[in-house]
Amino acid sequence: MTQIQDLSLNWRVSKQEAEAIERELLEDYRFGKQQLIEIFGHACAVAVTKVFPLSSLPKKQPTVLVICGPEQNGAIGLVCARHLRVYDYEPTIFYPKRSLNSLYQDFTTQCEKMDIPFLSYLPTEVQLINDAYNLVVDAILGLETDPTTVKEPFAGILTTLKQIKLPLVSLDIPSGWDAETGHSEGITPEVLVSLTAPKKCATQFLGKHHFVAGRFLPYDLQKKFELNLPVYSGAECVIQL
Amino acid sequence: MTQIQDLSLNWRVSKQEAEAIERELLEDYRFGKQQLIEIFGHACAVAVTKVFPLSSLPKKQPTVLVICGPEQNGAIGLVCARHLRVYDYEPTIFYPKRSLNSLYQDFTTQCEKMDIPFLSYLPTEVQLINDAYNLVVDAILGLETDPTTVKEPFAGILTTLKQIKLPLVSLDIPSGWDAETGHSEGITPEVLVSLTAPKKCATQFLGKHHFVAGRFLPYDLQKKFELNLPVYSGAECVIQL
Repeated sequence: MTQIQDLSLNWRVSKQEAEAIERELLEDYRFGKQQLIEIFGHACAVAVTKVFPLSSLPKKQPTVLVICGPEQNGAIGLVCARHLRVYDYEPTIFYPKRSLNSLYQDFTTQCEKMDIPFLSYLPTEVQLINDAYNLVVDAILGLETDPTTVKEPFAGILTTLKQIKLPLVSLDIPSGWDAETGHSEGITPEVLVSLTAPKKCATQFLGKHHFVAGRFLPYDLQKKFELNLPVYSGAECVIQL
Repeated sequence: MTQIQDLSLNWRVSKQEAEAIERELLEDYRFGKQQLIEIFGHACAVAVTKVFPLSSLPKKQPTVLVICGPEQNGAIGLVCARHLRVYDYEPTIFYPKRSLNSLYQDFTTQCEKMDIPFLSYLPTEVQLINDAYNLVVDAILGLETDPTTVKEPFAGILTTLKQIKLPLVSLDIPSGWDAETGHSEGITPEVLVSLTAPKKCATQFLGKHHFVAGRFLPYDLQKKFELNLPVYSGAECVIQL
């Protein structure tokens, strides 16, 4: 937690910088999309276990609702759900706009074949969600989304998420927030898992737990983008700020 | 450790069963090669940190020699080396027969771009290896290799590994062993990291630390192949038997 004192100005990256880092990882370092999504989804599940260990959950069943969007953020949510299942949670996935991307379809099949249930619709009655789950993972919209043009069904889902009383875990960017300026009237997650590096909008995150996941990031890239990332310990794949 | 009492006869898999499990993971569950290799390589690096934490290493520098073969076992070694680098070890890779497989080439590039040195040859003077490294990771030959037909340079490397005084960590199958019958005159690793499930040859492993890595394995597959795997705890990706 002391690292917060040492943060350089460039510790929180702009949308453009985040895109440039990912491009360089894929093109120069030859990381694969499948590999990165697996690494990120695994780390997000580990972060969930740290904040919400099985023994701490208020409901009798260790239920978790994972809401996945159509793009990469949603695919990371699918991987997160799969690892949560392996860690003995009971995830349920809501994935209203399935991608035609074959990679994302493979991640979907992995969840289906592991008997993780998929909801066909999200109850509009908020109390039903409050009663059924211990927490909600928001893997809906990520870096690539312009929050001013969020369409249905996601606009409606965000309205629901603003009303629920469950803790919300957002992956990378709270859905509906602008990656840089945030969103004064958006959802208010209790946990934020920043992928690779926090985005500028993380300054507006007021929840209790902020993690960074993406320990694989090569040192030269950290240097090139003048990232002053916190120091992970041991073999941990996430670090809490 | 108590689980050892509960092992069913089918707990150690035959070569044919191991191949069938991997085929099913890839074809039915739609796991990707890249994804599996990343998961296994990461878990192997975590196992190394458990047996050889940085503070325990006898040499001044936290050096590790990772020897990679041309097939999947070698690619897992590359990923293991990359994660060891991230965990502040100083891996050096010896990869004498580079694969033409573009996936393995990508894993190679990731290591090269992270400034992990590659040896152009392995010293035949065993003392040089003993003096330079704290341990050796054996990612040379895996399930797919017929140990009766090991060719150069690998036969020579195995001869060297039988003479070194350093602890040896073997990935999945000690190189040169038969997956089922082992090898009475083969290398004698101190650590074995079985991938997915121990192979039959693991009965002949007499080293100090035996890990299983592959926690992602879907429960239905475990049931189908009558695997009686040990129970992982928390969010651990490896378990020591």
